[in-house]
Amino acid sequence: MSAYPYPLLIQKMLLSGVSRAAGAEIISDGLTRYGYPELLQRVRRLVGALRSMDVQQGDTIAVMDWDTHRYLESFFGIPAAGAVLQMVNVRMSPEQIIYTLNKTRAKVIFCNADFAPLLEAVLAHLDHAKQLICLDDASAGASMWTGSYEKLLDAADPDTPFDDFDENTRATVFFTTGTTGLPKGVYFSHRQLVLHTLSLLAGFALGGPNARFSADGTYMPITPMFHVHAWGFPYAATMGGMKQVYPGRYIPANLLRLIVEEKVTLTHCVPTILRMLLDEPGSESMDLSRVSMAIGGSALPYALAEQALQRGIDVYTGYGMSEACPIISIAAGGNTVDTSEANVRQRTRAGVAAPLMEMQIVGPDMTPLPNDGEAAGEIVLRGPWLTPGYLDDEKASEALWEGGWMHTGDVGKIDPNGRLSITDRLKDVIKTGGEWISSLDMENILSRHPQVAEVAVIGVPHPQWGESALPFIVSRTGEDIPLAELAELIDACIADGSLPSYAKLKEVRFVSEIPKTSVGKLDKKALRQMAG
Amino acid sequence: MSAYPYPLLIQKMLLSGVSRAAGAEIISDGLTRYGYPELLQRVRRLVGALRSMDVQQGDTIAVMDWDTHRYLESFFGIPAAGAVLQMVNVRMSPEQIIYTLNKTRAKVIFCNADFAPLLEAVLAHLDHAKQLICLDDASAGASMWTGSYEKLLDAADPDTPFDDFDENTRATVFFTTGTTGLPKGVYFSHRQLVLHTLSLLAGFALGGPNARFSADGTYMPITPMFHVHAWGFPYAATMGGMKQVYPGRYIPANLLRLIVEEKVTLTHCVPTILRMLLDEPGSESMDLSRVSMAIGGSALPYALAEQALQRGIDVYTGYGMSEACPIISIAAGGNTVDTSEANVRQRTRAGVAAPLMEMQIVGPDMTPLPNDGEAAGEIVLRGPWLTPGYLDDEKASEALWEGGWMHTGDVGKIDPNGRLSITDRLKDVIKTGGEWISSLDMENILSRHPQVAEVAVIGVPHPQWGESALPFIVSRTGEDIPLAELAELIDACIADGSLPSYAKLKEVRFVSEIPKTSVGKLDKKALRQMAG
Repeated sequence: MSAYPYPLLIQKMLLSGVSRAAGAEIISDGLTRYGYPELLQRVRRLVGALRSMDVQQGDTIAVMDWDTHRYLESFFGIPAAGAVLQMVNVRMSPEQIIYTLNKTRAKVIFCNADFAPLLEAVLAHLDHAKQLICLDDASAGASMWTGSYEKLLDAADPDTPFDDFDENTRATVFFTTGTTGLPKGVYFSHRQLVLHTLSLLAGFALGGPNARFSADGTYMPITPMFHVHAWGFPYAATMGGMKQVYPGRYIPANLLRLIVEEKVTLTHCVPTILRMLLDEPGSESMDLSRVSMAIGGSALPYALAEQALQRGIDVYTGYGMSEACPIISIAAGGNTVDTSEANVRQRTRAGVAAPLMEMQIVGPDMTPLPNDGEAAGEIVLRGPWLTPGYLDDEKASEALWEGGWMHTGDVGKIDPNGRLSITDRLKDVIKTGGEWISSLDMENILSRHPQVAEVAVIGVPHPQWGESALPFIVSRTGEDIPLAELAELIDACIADGSLPSYAKLKEVRFVSEIPKTSVGKLDKKALRQMAG
Repeated sequence: MSAYPYPLLIQKMLLSGVSRAAGAEIISDGLTRYGYPELLQRVRRLVGALRSMDVQQGDTIAVMDWDTHRYLESFFGIPAAGAVLQMVNVRMSPEQIIYTLNKTRAKVIFCNADFAPLLEAVLAHLDHAKQLICLDDASAGASMWTGSYEKLLDAADPDTPFDDFDENTRATVFFTTGTTGLPKGVYFSHRQLVLHTLSLLAGFALGGPNARFSADGTYMPITPMFHVHAWGFPYAATMGGMKQVYPGRYIPANLLRLIVEEKVTLTHCVPTILRMLLDEPGSESMDLSRVSMAIGGSALPYALAEQALQRGIDVYTGYGMSEACPIISIAAGGNTVDTSEANVRQRTRAGVAAPLMEMQIVGPDMTPLPNDGEAAGEIVLRGPWLTPGYLDDEKASEALWEGGWMHTGDVGKIDPNGRLSITDRLKDVIKTGGEWISSLDMENILSRHPQVAEVAVIGVPHPQWGESALPFIVSRTGEDIPLAELAELIDACIADGSLPSYAKLKEVRFVSEIPKTSVGKLDKKALRQMAG
């Protein structure tokens, strides 16, 4: 008998979690709560059910659901069966959903009844979907379903064995919705997700005592599971045997209730959600001091970070992207109660690279730039969990990996301690007077004005300088803020050298809201159209 | 250009550490202190030097050194050059050292001047060693050396590039000295060491807030680097960018001084060393409350754990073995100041399996036994970092992996929370009256007597019961302890059912010391001869 050739498979993470998870519960709000042994049994049943449905190695199974225990089961069971889990972004347009489901040739769709109308509307255009499985209430869209998730599980063997196979087998696929063109598919193997998980656990631990996956903590996602594996946290929380809370559809009051009642210690979201939670009536009287919260998706404004820290939330930024599974770097660490400017600022930066992630900043010709905290260049990556390319798109894949490094399209600086600051998206940088001005820097500065609720800055054509900066501002009071007050903030930064003189403010626009992309980012493409 | 196929190589861990290691220092006591950028340069120089010495992929380079910065450089530089690092156990007999160096065909030997006499004595018997490199003082054994480590490094390029190669390339080899037969070689690949490191970081983090690799902490080994990669901690501390202290030769007063002066937060040792540190004159007035300490190698006696906790040391057991790289499980977690019996006891058990390590207990016919905290069976393993076998020993390798699981030769119980308790070595179990009595259980019970300084229990032939238990005891006062006082402790456990009646004490032997193996474990083979 020779040694067991241990492959890095997603089901191994589940087994590891189950073996250490005392009585830790998985809570699916309003649906169920059960322990890790039952999670394992249900995942085994799911593998058995998929086999009974004639799902073959490499087949794609799409999921349309809120954040539930069933989605967690799919995270493990679909890849464990050798199939590919497609996470459908239910906020995409029907056209985009049709495009993505046809592109992956998704054979089976697991769908929450809430999305039955959406699925019914696109069904006629799906070329490959043979089986539509209702995740919960089959009365919605009754004639469409070919099966029920719970009935399939009931009929399957709770001891279905996990097979071993090549760790490079594709495990997941999903689509990024950029601001231009068709959605692009990215995909990850079992090996990549296992390494991503290990590095996530290790990286958070190195950061400090607060932000940490801990066997005695409680995890809850507030980034949808359809969005880049909920940033990979459910895999890490499960491998760690943590108590987990899945909140279903996101309703701020409900999220706050779960945080308090279930004693959530670890979560993550985009800045917009954090703002919603803090602005929710009654939230100011809740004790949020137990919560460690990673922020990603877009930059964490200084003022919002400060506000969250004042409320006791251990808030910090992570930097990631769909193409990176998504974790690239983490700014965890530091002291929760410290609201000094240095501490708040450090938490709003992108942090240090996760263990094993190689991060470099380069000039336009791929010349490496120094990590001196001064030079700004495009952030390029090498790491064990970066997508090998875009699905069936050779040209875009080649551009993504030009020069043997993965291009993030983000511009940043790295200091000698490895701390990354994102200064902008390469395409959002305001190119003016022969210099680059970071639209993010300007947004941060303008957000310090107490009357600024939200701000987005874009570059607009300028006859003399190439481009000039145009801020779009949501006023907290609804009344316009005098231009002079805003210009004063910018002028102070020009005076101290942190902004070039070309940043001088000439004009601002007040709007009732800033348009967002389907994943909640500032939609600068839409703003450019608004600017005309 | 296609995606970069990121291989799991040891040099990647170094790059990862350097990128995040602010001004963290590597301190080699009495020799040097430098920062991570210099560590990287010196490792690159070492790779360059090995290339200039015509070291080929797969060649073995042996190291004989105390715990120094040069050993740390070898941990990275030798594997990064594609060569195999052989860690020579300098406490082995000259015959064993000759055997092991010939077995691996070690081509180059890096040797500390302190071991020059040892190397000179065996030199004539080495069949393959072509180059002998002095690590420090070349005046010792002057005629023997073919080169000097520092001169080789000086001559090499500090920017020597790291090449990529197959992650399954062998990186390290060393020999286990069992109590019988010739030393057996075990070996590990780059991939295995990277995964071991990630799991170590993740596993400690999950355990609790105290015992943790943290970027702002300080690590120092007190398990020799020649012993199973110093349990893998130097790789983890380096990848985490921690401050590190290498204490040279182990002298208790010096170790204590370094712990206090350098503010060590994380270390590890065998119980014997912990006892030496606590017994060192003056140590009781030192503040050791910052120190988290993993104990392995042999069981941590209850009384010693309690004493360490009372001194403020966050002490806990890890379970490992040479064949497992070595980490299998960790008992980290809990509250340092809590010296309740439940807490002390939990810390003396073997803990929960490290992330991804699959651990099972089985009966003699490989029947899986339940994790109910009651059933005791042999602990068998599947994991990503177990040795594929013993070097050039097919028969022993097959026995090690019989049934597709790696056999630890240890007997234990696992509770429903995954917590392992080692009850004994399979071969040290006292087989009496048709039952198994754990020699470790008896040792723990007897160690509670205040006059017992050290105790080892073996099974000796008994005409009626097969075997009976014979304790060897070192008395703290030098005077014999009345048998009745010791028997009383055992009888209480027979009365409460935690020991079978066959454990009844008939005889004890008082000795001035318990013989130890070269790695500091109780040498039960020698005791059996003494009992003989």
